Amino acid sequence: MNARFFPEVAPLKYAGPTSRDTFVYRWYDKNRVVLGKRMEDHLRFAVAYWHSFTWPGGDPFGGETFLRPWMHGSDEMELARAKAEVAFELFRVLDVPFFAFHDRDIAPEGRSLKESNANVRAIADVFAKKMETEKVRLLWGTANLFSNRRFMAGAATNPDPEVFAYAAAQVKNVLEVTHELGGENYVLWGGREGYETLLNTSLPRELDQMGRFLNLVVEHKYKIGFKGTILIEPKPQEPTKHQYDFDVGTVYGLLCRAGLEKEVKVNIEANHATLAGHSFEHEIAMAAALGIFGSIDMNKGDAQSGWDTDQFPTNVEDTALAFYEILKAGGYTTGGTNFDAKIRRQSIEPEDLVLAHAAAIDVCARALLIAADMFEDGALRKAVDARYARWDESENKAMLAPGASLEAIAARVEAQRLDPQPRSGRQERFEALVGSYLR
Amino acid sequence: MNARFFPEVAPLKYAGPTSRDTFVYRWYDKNRVVLGKRMEDHLRFAVAYWHSFTWPGGDPFGGETFLRPWMHGSDEMELARAKAEVAFELFRVLDVPFFAFHDRDIAPEGRSLKESNANVRAIADVFAKKMETEKVRLLWGTANLFSNRRFMAGAATNPDPEVFAYAAAQVKNVLEVTHELGGENYVLWGGREGYETLLNTSLPRELDQMGRFLNLVVEHKYKIGFKGTILIEPKPQEPTKHQYDFDVGTVYGLLCRAGLEKEVKVNIEANHATLAGHSFEHEIAMAAALGIFGSIDMNKGDAQSGWDTDQFPTNVEDTALAFYEILKAGGYTTGGTNFDAKIRRQSIEPEDLVLAHAAAIDVCARALLIAADMFEDGALRKAVDARYARWDESENKAMLAPGASLEAIAARVEAQRLDPQPRSGRQERFEALVGSYLR
Amino acid sequence: MNARFFPEVAPLKYAGPTSRDTFVYRWYDKNRVVLGKRMEDHLRFAVAYWHSFTWPGGDPFGGETFLRPWMHGSDEMELARAKAEVAFELFRVLDVPFFAFHDRDIAPEGRSLKESNANVRAIADVFAKKMETEKVRLLWGTANLFSNRRFMAGAATNPDPEVFAYAAAQVKNVLEVTHELGGENYVLWGGREGYETLLNTSLPRELDQMGRFLNLVVEHKYKIGFKGTILIEPKPQEPTKHQYDFDVGTVYGLLCRAGLEKEVKVNIEANHATLAGHSFEHEIAMAAALGIFGSIDMNKGDAQSGWDTDQFPTNVEDTALAFYEILKAGGYTTGGTNFDAKIRRQSIEPEDLVLAHAAAIDVCARALLIAADMFEDGALRKAVDARYARWDESENKAMLAPGASLEAIAARVEAQRLDPQPRSGRQERFEALVGSYLR
Amino acid sequence: MNARFFPEVAPLKYAGPTSRDTFVYRWYDKNRVVLGKRMEDHLRFAVAYWHSFTWPGGDPFGGETFLRPWMHGSDEMELARAKAEVAFELFRVLDVPFFAFHDRDIAPEGRSLKESNANVRAIADVFAKKMETEKVRLLWGTANLFSNRRFMAGAATNPDPEVFAYAAAQVKNVLEVTHELGGENYVLWGGREGYETLLNTSLPRELDQMGRFLNLVVEHKYKIGFKGTILIEPKPQEPTKHQYDFDVGTVYGLLCRAGLEKEVKVNIEANHATLAGHSFEHEIAMAAALGIFGSIDMNKGDAQSGWDTDQFPTNVEDTALAFYEILKAGGYTTGGTNFDAKIRRQSIEPEDLVLAHAAAIDVCARALLIAADMFEDGALRKAVDARYARWDESENKAMLAPGASLEAIAARVEAQRLDPQPRSGRQERFEALVGSYLR
Ligand SMILES: [Co+2]
Ligand SMILES: [Co+2]
Ligand SMILES: [Co+2]
Ligand SMILES: [Co+2]
Ligand SMILES: [Co+2]
Ligand SMILES: [Co+2]
Ligand SMILES: [Co+2]
Ligand SMILES: [Co+2]
Repeated sequence: MNARFFPEVAPLKYAGPTSRDTFVYRWYDKNRVVLGKRMEDHLRFAVAYWHSFTWPGGDPFGGETFLRPWMHGSDEMELARAKAEVAFELFRVLDVPFFAFHDRDIAPEGRSLKESNANVRAIADVFAKKMETEKVRLLWGTANLFSNRRFMAGAATNPDPEVFAYAAAQVKNVLEVTHELGGENYVLWGGREGYETLLNTSLPRELDQMGRFLNLVVEHKYKIGFKGTILIEPKPQEPTKHQYDFDVGTVYGLLCRAGLEKEVKVNIEANHATLAGHSFEHEIAMAAALGIFGSIDMNKGDAQSGWDTDQFPTNVEDTALAFYEILKAGGYTTGGTNFDAKIRRQSIEPEDLVLAHAAAIDVCARALLIAADMFEDGALRKAVDARYARWDESENKAMLAPGASLEAIAARVEAQRLDPQPRSGRQERFEALVGSYLR
Repeated sequence: MNARFFPEVAPLKYAGPTSRDTFVYRWYDKNRVVLGKRMEDHLRFAVAYWHSFTWPGGDPFGGETFLRPWMHGSDEMELARAKAEVAFELFRVLDVPFFAFHDRDIAPEGRSLKESNANVRAIADVFAKKMETEKVRLLWGTANLFSNRRFMAGAATNPDPEVFAYAAAQVKNVLEVTHELGGENYVLWGGREGYETLLNTSLPRELDQMGRFLNLVVEHKYKIGFKGTILIEPKPQEPTKHQYDFDVGTVYGLLCRAGLEKEVKVNIEANHATLAGHSFEHEIAMAAALGIFGSIDMNKGDAQSGWDTDQFPTNVEDTALAFYEILKAGGYTTGGTNFDAKIRRQSIEPEDLVLAHAAAIDVCARALLIAADMFEDGALRKAVDARYARWDESENKAMLAPGASLEAIAARVEAQRLDPQPRSGRQERFEALVGSYLR
Repeated sequence: MNARFFPEVAPLKYAGPTSRDTFVYRWYDKNRVVLGKRMEDHLRFAVAYWHSFTWPGGDPFGGETFLRPWMHGSDEMELARAKAEVAFELFRVLDVPFFAFHDRDIAPEGRSLKESNANVRAIADVFAKKMETEKVRLLWGTANLFSNRRFMAGAATNPDPEVFAYAAAQVKNVLEVTHELGGENYVLWGGREGYETLLNTSLPRELDQMGRFLNLVVEHKYKIGFKGTILIEPKPQEPTKHQYDFDVGTVYGLLCRAGLEKEVKVNIEANHATLAGHSFEHEIAMAAALGIFGSIDMNKGDAQSGWDTDQFPTNVEDTALAFYEILKAGGYTTGGTNFDAKIRRQSIEPEDLVLAHAAAIDVCARALLIAADMFEDGALRKAVDARYARWDESENKAMLAPGASLEAIAARVEAQRLDPQPRSGRQERFEALVGSYLR
Repeated sequence: MNARFFPEVAPLKYAGPTSRDTFVYRWYDKNRVVLGKRMEDHLRFAVAYWHSFTWPGGDPFGGETFLRPWMHGSDEMELARAKAEVAFELFRVLDVPFFAFHDRDIAPEGRSLKESNANVRAIADVFAKKMETEKVRLLWGTANLFSNRRFMAGAATNPDPEVFAYAAAQVKNVLEVTHELGGENYVLWGGREGYETLLNTSLPRELDQMGRFLNLVVEHKYKIGFKGTILIEPKPQEPTKHQYDFDVGTVYGLLCRAGLEKEVKVNIEANHATLAGHSFEHEIAMAAALGIFGSIDMNKGDAQSGWDTDQFPTNVEDTALAFYEILKAGGYTTGGTNFDAKIRRQSIEPEDLVLAHAAAIDVCARALLIAADMFEDGALRKAVDARYARWDESENKAMLAPGASLEAIAARVEAQRLDPQPRSGRQERFEALVGSYLR
């Protein structure tokens, strides 16, 4: 494990779209200024620990395919340290500014929560040490509250209050570790917060438990002075058949119910959006409209599979539409573009891990350039504004203001003999316009 | 059109499960007392005007199949009156206590909104007259804000403020007509409140328009003294690709955003639930937990088709699970079981309309009996209570109360060396238990 | 491991629908004669080794939940023998006539194929010994050609011919073992016969490989004198994104291409049918119409999840429709009702395994009784026959016979001025009729 | 109706990717030679009559939006002639080489089949006259056997033999008209060949009827000397819940059953492929591998809607993958790229029809250039060939040839101690490679 794991030592460099080299960026030029900001600062890429270093390549019908050296051995903490070496090697090779992790990704479960937490802190110390010399920073940390069998019926929403307590204690530790490592966000993904069958479930109890848990986390954030953002990652199903954090709209409702709609934002994953019946850009735009847009988990699903395939994004056009919405939302503040994506289980070579990330980074960079053109050119925005322009006329604006009433509006319709004629929505023209920015 | 349209004059009577007759009820025995209430009062069946009397049997690949006499003629108001005769004939044959309608179902569109509204009132007068002698009452009225081409880009959320005004004036009329006919609810279904492509859409504007529209309706309700419930019917897509009223959870969030979560409830349609990725019973239970359960549109979809097939319910077991949740929610107040269901377009005989409703009524009645057994027996409830019982212990309850903190909980976990062990969720046993109530 | 694993020693007995006992059958009365045959002989239940004894309860987001004693230890063959004890204990407790297995379910992988095959034979010897005294027989055996990483890109359709060879040698062993154990069928499930991305795939090569592999298996069947049926189990996707054995219709085409449509039949799994966009009964009826119906894997999926949830069947009405098609197809010959179903991963108690099977057996038995009533009563069949009756008139029959031509038919249409009027399909009436058999 | 319907008279011209003009082609340069063939000859674009000139803009929740002048009037044949004028105007404006139609698209239904057929011939004469001076040719004709209520239960598969006869006579007419107009193919789309409920259906009868009908058509083709290709267009569902022509694999099986696998090919529609759970390129590649690739209906669906949205293609990358498979299949012979696509119902301006087609033509042209680069460069093909290279070694090839046996192969595995190790499938690298051709 002393030797390099990846084939290339030097960080990948920008070589331009026509380069024929293998280990280069064709579109990601981190210092290039786009809409007044460096590409790196726009995109804020993060590599995720779990898929790249912790997942062994299994699926429900077959086991491990990767046979990574740090997955086989007897001293688990030693293996965790070896894994950290490889992780930071990849961060360096890819030259990305961020990474992200679950507690269980980075350190083994101990014989007690105390020991588990200590393991997490020990590896966090390794990270802290490395981060003194490496440029990579922590986009977010999170607690894995779904893999261990104790969480099989949920964490905050478990019928067993001791599991709630255990989860709370685990989150406390990771939130603090995240704070100490300078993390910019803390994420909650309710992987088993939901139910398998309504028959054995008390929905009112579980919703109350979840709301209270969330408040406890927010209160602790303030107590320890964490300045980052608390993020919820919506997902409609899988592993739990019905998950409470179904999508952005549902999470917003639950935040309102818990009085937290100003405190908590969302981390939107592309494949989770599509599994919920939305487009990725819909979920981003909806979050922005509701004031809760935070960060994204970049990946793609397979529209013909009903599960979370977590593939690396490949389609530049689709990705551009997502970044266009992010630009419209004002870009990230504490958020970033985290690759919650895994190489296919047949991609067993170390270089596949490098190439998959590099290709995805290029897809996003190319998409950002297209989105920036769309944004800067303004043709789309102007066409949209024109469509709604009459709403800015005073008589129309008044209908949305206090004092309006159905009676007054009905009287106007009759008096003015209103008979509004439809106007073309010009969808194909809008779509063609988007195509014209493609490069 | 003077002759009876349906083969049977006499109202269908209860004849018991073993009857071999065709035009009878095998399970619906309206005066039978179940859980202290007459079946009729539990189920509060309604027949819907649109599918049964207004839809001609077309689909996207073929036109009219039914050739109903009231759909062919030159005097539209005359046809509307003939249609009302047939409708009330069916209400009488089925012996159901309620019906429901859209304005455009009952009366033709006029050359102006004023004329259209007058047409609606004219037929409402026919209804009022009939309701003096018939027992049938109005479950709810609603405005059709989606069929006319003026609404092709939405009603409240239209980019054209005049369409908003037109829709407001139309809703005012139907709300008042509903009030005058003694309707118990008023429903809003946002059939085109959403967007086809995000590219030509301003999401923030449309959400604001929708919220304001809803407030105008609620304000008018109070102004005219309507005591019924305002209901929103969620639907995830179709006709609009993305509809804002996606599901119960999303509607709850939008109600919170508009400050209306105490004012407006939901009318949950079975097929809309499944199209949104939920079960029907999930949506009912979620609405109950959020305090917004109102009424249901009973039907079923085809799990393998992605559109709203609006079939009559046929599966007793599935239907029993929905009624069990309704019983758990305390039953209906102003709501009811509205058949938003249509006969298949090949079912062209008048008697198909009678038989389809009768069979569905029996499915619901049988389901209610099963659900009542489940409810009364209590075995399911006790098993659920037992699962959460430890949450009622004071130390555990305290975690959900003010004063709890992650720190205190974490200290407890460590002090008590909590290591919660999972307990079987017994899903198959719960499912088998449900099966044992089947009859 | 000497003690009993399951709570009940005695085989479950029929106790009737109203029994309140836990470990009994309410509907499965194996000696009851239905349509001239014992229920046991109609249903031919089989317990599957893999889900019940080999799967540890993991899912993509969490590991083992069951902690079965035979899954933890150092001597793998010893554990395999312990597992066989428990398996036969369950067969006895459930009193089912059949079981089914993959080679890798029953015995550990060795250091070479030779050793693996020897392990399989060693456990087969254990089975043979047990089967001398137990009544249980082997419904089918099959080779696991998907779990080991060597099969990650397919078995017969692997780009590496050595994997094809390895798979062929493995199938030879299991086919022979199945033959020796008196198995009534041999199943092939192409779990990774397909592709993940068309980009790296040669479809023509893979289809040729698959066709040839199948012929090799059929040839070997004759060589060793195996009288059972060779079955293919269709599945549309998962684990492989696109699997070649998509559904019954596709398998039929591939069999024709390989010249095997008279030699090979299908093993139809309920959840695979629904994943392919069909109903279970559709796939059975289609296989019967194409002359390739063999056996079934009984389970159910979740219509709202896009993966193979392999749940135990719970819905009596849906199951009755499947058995009705099996009765129409003449019932099983060598086939049977294999429970390719797993308890939910939260159902961690040994008794959950018993209760889940018992409940599913009762669902099937109850469904069979309903289906038999439907079949015997004949009302459905007569109504269908009436619908097509005119096809038996000679002029109409002639259109389907040699000698007919478009010209002659067109001349008839003109001469007779044919203007066929549609007749009601009476779908709701047919559905209501089915409901009337429910019990 | 004498005035031009479309805003531009002159045919659209190629103006290059950077042109800012509205009515031009940016990528479609018909005379540009790509892989030795003119773009026009590669792509063979066709405009479809039905969506563009016959569909009024309705959907299941709303009626006509387009209000085309040729849809309103009393003399239906006059309107049909006016429609033909507009159609040929669009063919000219777009400068496409082909068009396609159903009989009912071009001419009104008469009071008898004889009259209907005469109407079709009358408009066909109009076409023939126009085609003397216009360059546009007929890609294919087809009979509409699904819109009229007589076909509500199917055409060839109708329980009523007179409907079969009627359909046969109608097909005879359109096949002859297609032949006379020099059509290059004749298409059958089984829009209602399937069933709504298995309960009222005889599957064996219907499959036999369908097979015989197809043979009658093929026999008539030879009788009249039609040299074109008979094509079946697969579709999994909609309008009929289960359609027999589900997908390419299923159609192949049905062709084998009817003995027609050498006589009939497939017309593959993009959205039908995705509705069946496949990718468009999968269906093309599968048809090519099975020897039945014919033509395509180019469009796209909405992956989140379960129905056939028939949208114009917009995604260049996805489209390039389809054209890459067409190039691999050797390109079209009699087939072409027919736009079975409709503008959105909100796109009510005449120019929307021009712009939608023009944008789609550009998407396809751009996609062809990318696909041609992929094909010519050969990097993908070489990488695929390398993956399967060992299959060309004699010992491996022999396994697929007569004489091989499981015994011999198993002996080899043992003798050579084969233990094949998996090799990376390099999916992400293949995907990135595709991205590098994007322009
Ligand atoms: Co994620
Ligand atoms: Co994911
Ligand atoms: Co409804
Ligand atoms: Co509906
Ligand atoms: Co199976
Ligand atoms: Co399965
Ligand atoms: Co088509
Ligand atoms: Co289509």
